[in-house]
Amino acid sequence: MQRFEVTAESGSYPVLIGRGAWRELRSVPSQDYSSVFILSEKGIWRYWSQRLVREGGLGRARVLFVPAGERSKSLAALERVASSLARLGADRRSLLVLFGGGVIGDLGGFVASTYMRGIHCIGVPTTLVGQVDSAIGGKNAVNLPAGKNLVGTFYPPRMVLADPGVLASLSPRVFRSGLYEVVKHAILAGGPLVNLLDRHVNHLGPDSVKALEAILGPAVRVKIDVVNRDEREANLRQVLNLGHTFGHALEAATGYKRLLHGESVGWGLLAVTVLAERLGYLRSGDAERMRDLVWRIGPLPSIRDVPARKIVSLLPHDKKAVSGEIHWVIPERIGKVRIVTGVPMAAAESAWRELQQMRHRH
Amino acid sequence: MQRFEVTAESGSYPVLIGRGAWRELRSVPSQDYSSVFILSEKGIWRYWSQRLVREGGLGRARVLFVPAGERSKSLAALERVASSLARLGADRRSLLVLFGGGVIGDLGGFVASTYMRGIHCIGVPTTLVGQVDSAIGGKNAVNLPAGKNLVGTFYPPRMVLADPGVLASLSPRVFRSGLYEVVKHAILAGGPLVNLLDRHVNHLGPDSVKALEAILGPAVRVKIDVVNRDEREANLRQVLNLGHTFGHALEAATGYKRLLHGESVGWGLLAVTVLAERLGYLRSGDAERMRDLVWRIGPLPSIRDVPARKIVSLLPHDKKAVSGEIHWVIPERIGKVRIVTGVPMAAAESAWRELQQMRHRH
Repeated sequence: MQRFEVTAESGSYPVLIGRGAWRELRSVPSQDYSSVFILSEKGIWRYWSQRLVREGGLGRARVLFVPAGERSKSLAALERVASSLARLGADRRSLLVLFGGGVIGDLGGFVASTYMRGIHCIGVPTTLVGQVDSAIGGKNAVNLPAGKNLVGTFYPPRMVLADPGVLASLSPRVFRSGLYEVVKHAILAGGPLVNLLDRHVNHLGPDSVKALEAILGPAVRVKIDVVNRDEREANLRQVLNLGHTFGHALEAATGYKRLLHGESVGWGLLAVTVLAERLGYLRSGDAERMRDLVWRIGPLPSIRDVPARKIVSLLPHDKKAVSGEIHWVIPERIGKVRIVTGVPMAAAESAWRELQQMRHRH
Repeated sequence: MQRFEVTAESGSYPVLIGRGAWRELRSVPSQDYSSVFILSEKGIWRYWSQRLVREGGLGRARVLFVPAGERSKSLAALERVASSLARLGADRRSLLVLFGGGVIGDLGGFVASTYMRGIHCIGVPTTLVGQVDSAIGGKNAVNLPAGKNLVGTFYPPRMVLADPGVLASLSPRVFRSGLYEVVKHAILAGGPLVNLLDRHVNHLGPDSVKALEAILGPAVRVKIDVVNRDEREANLRQVLNLGHTFGHALEAATGYKRLLHGESVGWGLLAVTVLAERLGYLRSGDAERMRDLVWRIGPLPSIRDVPARKIVSLLPHDKKAVSGEIHWVIPERIGKVRIVTGVPMAAAESAWRELQQMRHRH
């Protein structure tokens, strides 16, 4: 079991990673809470509820479900979940356990931060993206028709418990989707995480528990190090947006349907390496090595039909844009990025076209 | 001009009270913000927009409107306002000015605290309740069908600017509704505020600017003193709930239609003095004096037909209830309350019946 500490402005909390992490739920004094609720979705719940309830001592908790998928990241879903909590008598001393992937974490974190102006929550992420990224850092959000993650808060959980064993129930595609975020962390951090991925990425699967235990620690540390230095992303936290500027535009351009979030990030990483080369920040050898890590994860849904013009038109909607100015996270080499503004739209457009024409291994 | 400082855990900010307070908007460096938005409702906006824009230097701000009334305190309204902000290009460096009463403050504070995970806001309360109470302390919320103020956050504004001159456009009834909250503050604090009210309460109207300037300061100080000591109302802030336990139940029992919030608080104050007498915490002379301050404000909508049983059944829905246990704020004398739990429901029910039969001056 590996233990990290997030020490953010809004509160400190432990992150436990490893087999058996869920047992830590038993360390929470039951007298701290008037009642315990679990927010989940039925697919993952069927798989793991028995083990979670047994290991976590959650026999008396009540379970609330939302439909799987991005559509549950909505204010309507917040209203439904908060209304259920009220109907079931949840008060300001109730605890909410978030058992699921990014959608559960984002919606549930927002519910916890706003229900009666804030109740405690514990994150139990069940996807790779959740475990290395979204469950850590206290960011939550729901979507508006006008864009993703436009409404949310910063709200620290009481703890985050990540057991890689739970990943075994992921589909290979969802699992791979999370690996793109791990590659993002590796590009940001460099060092041992890159070597670990180099060694394992071709044969990593949802049930590679041993290899995953080795990878999760350093991958999570990247996120925690950044969060601990800059919770509100006034500055440093922007680097975590590597691959997300193109990625979000791609998700929007394809109606949030064709690609999983992590897959969009995969394409976003590829695109930004091309852009970084064009702008002269990144040598082509380093760019190739980064793209190689991405390609080796496996096949990505095609983007052949997504016009560069459309991608570029959707870029400024990115939330990181201040006054319409995009803050690009540009890789300079493995282990080093810089924030660049004033990138010509024409360069972004050309980079996307070049990516669409690139030959690559699947 | 009186200046107070709220120094809460989540951030410090000034509260300015007096004629010309809006001019302080000009002290905000325009380079701090990429754009400025105003949230308001059309009634109040028609009256004061010219003066606000001129005094505050808000010529370039864009104005968003929501319908007047409690129904705008909803997640649907949050969605509409946040979507408008997104459509108009608001980013995380935009500023939102909240120009209106409690509904604008509560909805707008929640919008500001969640739009892109938090943008700055400035409170410009235009009602008496807003100026002495709801705009101060950083609490915001919207309602659910299951109950009032069930979803919200703690979020400090950048500043609060209260000009008593704006109260002149209030209807006498809305104005009086705010006076009940002022009486609540007087009962909590005792001292000069009680004497001021004793002297002025019979002839105070929306345009009694001079008397209001004298009263607003000490009334606001009560709220600020409590907030500065206990922002999260773990404990001390509960005292501000004086009159609200019955009050909220009464609002719910009458479908949030018959009474204004302050009027419910007026009835709640009357009811809790009766309850405090019955429980032996309050001598009848002090109870009479408290009730006298309430009665002298003016006529309250009748509660003759609101059954005590219904009131009591709606009490535990109060958000301050932890595990179904109600924390009553019980007056012991003018200037002193105590938190009491374990009050028999039968006592609350009898107190309500006694109040319904009480003869009083209108």
